[in-house]
Amino acid sequence: MKVLIVYAHPEPRSLNGALREIAVKELMAQGHEVQVSDLYADGWKSQVDRADFPSLARDERLITVAASKKAFEAGTLTSDVKAEIEKLLWADALILQFPLWWFTMPAILKGWVDRVFAYGFAYGVGEHSDRRWGDRYGEGTLAGKRAMLIVTAGGWEEHYAARGVNGPIDDLLFPINHGILYYPGYDVLPPFVVYRADGFDESRLGPVAEHLRKRMRTLFTTRPIPYRQQNAGDYLIPSMQLRPGLGDPGATGFGLHVDNEGGVNER
Amino acid sequence: MKVLIVYAHPEPRSLNGALREIAVKELMAQGHEVQVSDLYADGWKSQVDRADFPSLARDERLITVAASKKAFEAGTLTSDVKAEIEKLLWADALILQFPLWWFTMPAILKGWVDRVFAYGFAYGVGEHSDRRWGDRYGEGTLAGKRAMLIVTAGGWEEHYAARGVNGPIDDLLFPINHGILYYPGYDVLPPFVVYRADGFDESRLGPVAEHLRKRMRTLFTTRPIPYRQQNAGDYLIPSMQLRPGLGDPGATGFGLHVDNEGGVNER
Repeated sequence: MKVLIVYAHPEPRSLNGALREIAVKELMAQGHEVQVSDLYADGWKSQVDRADFPSLARDERLITVAASKKAFEAGTLTSDVKAEIEKLLWADALILQFPLWWFTMPAILKGWVDRVFAYGFAYGVGEHSDRRWGDRYGEGTLAGKRAMLIVTAGGWEEHYAARGVNGPIDDLLFPINHGILYYPGYDVLPPFVVYRADGFDESRLGPVAEHLRKRMRTLFTTRPIPYRQQNAGDYLIPSMQLRPGLGDPGATGFGLHVDNEGGVNER
Repeated sequence: MKVLIVYAHPEPRSLNGALREIAVKELMAQGHEVQVSDLYADGWKSQVDRADFPSLARDERLITVAASKKAFEAGTLTSDVKAEIEKLLWADALILQFPLWWFTMPAILKGWVDRVFAYGFAYGVGEHSDRRWGDRYGEGTLAGKRAMLIVTAGGWEEHYAARGVNGPIDDLLFPINHGILYYPGYDVLPPFVVYRADGFDESRLGPVAEHLRKRMRTLFTTRPIPYRQQNAGDYLIPSMQLRPGLGDPGATGFGLHVDNEGGVNER
């Protein structure tokens, strides 16, 4: 199979650098083809701006959604963005690897999402009707592919637990896992997270590496997070509210969108 | 009072541009001093990299936390970052204004956080003991000041409601409101959110503008979101778990960290 790792750390001699090498090596040992987009090494341009839309007239108002749609359709996105889109279409699995900075991804990786996830490619796909609200949340261009996060976090695991002060890690990562990866169709795997990454003691690397290798070996067999498909009956259209009665009693927030029971989608 | 608006939209002729003008005008009409950091107009550098730490030796491994600590202490952060820190210290209130892209802030604004929120300034402040876990979550350098978000979102309000498919807006913004703003000490106000911002009909601007002006008039009187202070007794140290029995029965995730009852902190 084919795997793309999008890697966002400025220092190769880091824990992230070590984890990346371990992941690549194990994936290749399993016979997979691997490409790495090393955003810092590649000098990736982080922010969306007018330069992303060369066909925009000089005095034309930049409406990012409209400009993205037009440029994707006309094939006039910049070459760095087009190359990433090709890699995403090529890959059977996408791994985003990054240090958790301020409880989300570093700016350079957010800029990769903002620029590469074009209208007509990652959003604005499919019809809107009384039965569908676009191909998104479980459907879309990248459906049938898998995605997962490899994340390092400075804090303690307890601080990211169900009642930890930072908020639960699954909720902190929900806007990425659900909002960025599930949205264009990926099946999203549980994340691989290393805690207490600041001042990481080399002696801890052994078990962490073994766990990561195992996750790489099971990349194509691990059960994805059972998010609810948008257009499969669980949501009212067009209000996109979860139907009354669905969701664990007492569940609130992001947890409602995970179907732990094997709900409508799987029956 | 003094207000800093950090503004992250690439097009002045946008809904965001209009909202910014309305906010600035109303704040000045109230007698406040206002500064705007217009990240796109200023050519803000989005990503953290070696160039942020000019005193780092050429071959030295970049450990971002350590480099940030050293540079903040020694006063060797870059001049653009130092200018933003001065503005934050100057301002009694901070407003972050941005379009919601992929359920969080645009890369350029994330890069502003990643670069400006230095170790020793916004994190890594205060002692760690059996009674305190640093000055954070309600304490810290920016304590006593207020912060709020002005956000535009493409989707419908219903899609961001308690049971909406995107997840509740308060949960999507929690990593920013709690993890970025409350963390270094800000009192965080409920956000101002405009939905269906794509293709925004000018005829809708009137009521939106009036609401925004009202929010600007009440910037220093609106009740902040009652997040729980970390070191005031609600959390076990050092595990930083919310004490058993605290939190609404049935509440999970981010909601636990909002004290709707007026809990330990206020008793």
